[in-house]
Amino acid sequence: MSAPGFALDPRLEADTVAVAALPLCELRLMDDARFPWLVLVPRRPGAVEIADLAEADQAELWREVNRAAVALRAAAPCDKLNLGALGNIVRQLHVHVVARREGDAAWPGPVWGSGAAEAYARPDRETLVGRLRAALAD
Amino acid sequence: MSAPGFALDPRLEADTVAVAALPLCELRLMDDARFPWLVLVPRRPGAVEIADLAEADQAELWREVNRAAVALRAAAPCDKLNLGALGNIVRQLHVHVVARREGDAAWPGPVWGSGAAEAYARPDRETLVGRLRAALAD
Repeated sequence: MSAPGFALDPRLEADTVAVAALPLCELRLMDDARFPWLVLVPRRPGAVEIADLAEADQAELWREVNRAAVALRAAAPCDKLNLGALGNIVRQLHVHVVARREGDAAWPGPVWGSGAAEAYARPDRETLVGRLRAALAD
Repeated sequence: MSAPGFALDPRLEADTVAVAALPLCELRLMDDARFPWLVLVPRRPGAVEIADLAEADQAELWREVNRAAVALRAAAPCDKLNLGALGNIVRQLHVHVVARREGDAAWPGPVWGSGAAEAYARPDRETLVGRLRAALAD
């Protein structure tokens, strides 16, 4: 699922691990054990705002966000999903889907800008990625 | 554009002013002069997560979010749009579209949970609402 001219932003790449290549987006897991947290990155070089995407791509992006949200909720039960597209720091268009639990490290505030990431223990991360892939395949 | 059983959450109502009734959503302006900030609230009683909406409603929601984003950018030029659906405090489903400027009161962090709102001077708010309505009508 490569796209000519597309390269994942190096900061996104460093902060996340690959989960799946969806038809439009790279689906990645933030390596932060505080919050089960997915990031979708449309393989569209130069896209910064959602409005930069063609209308059909926008529709596909939201279908994939919804699919990611359903899988995340199945793999990591939560009290509330949080969705965000900010891009104030990393401009490459990306959409966050975060499983929030009452009393988690940022509750009830947003996860963005909230303290430092705490990397998963490798086996925990592999377990979660496996659960996410299974949920996506359902 | 009333919907049986739908009532705007009282906190959302207190924090915002009406801009327009779109086919699915109430479109409201956050009364916070620090950030030009729209909130879309689907008139669907009981909806909390985007996945609670029927598929056609989800597609309409994203069309309206995009329409609101285009109008906001026309009415309040900015460096970056921020989109969010959190609902950790107010559970009624609502989507934020915020015009961010480099150096604004929360930059580059998120607006959610960032300090206290500063109400608009009434004439400034009326000017902005007028610009938003004109941009929506374009």
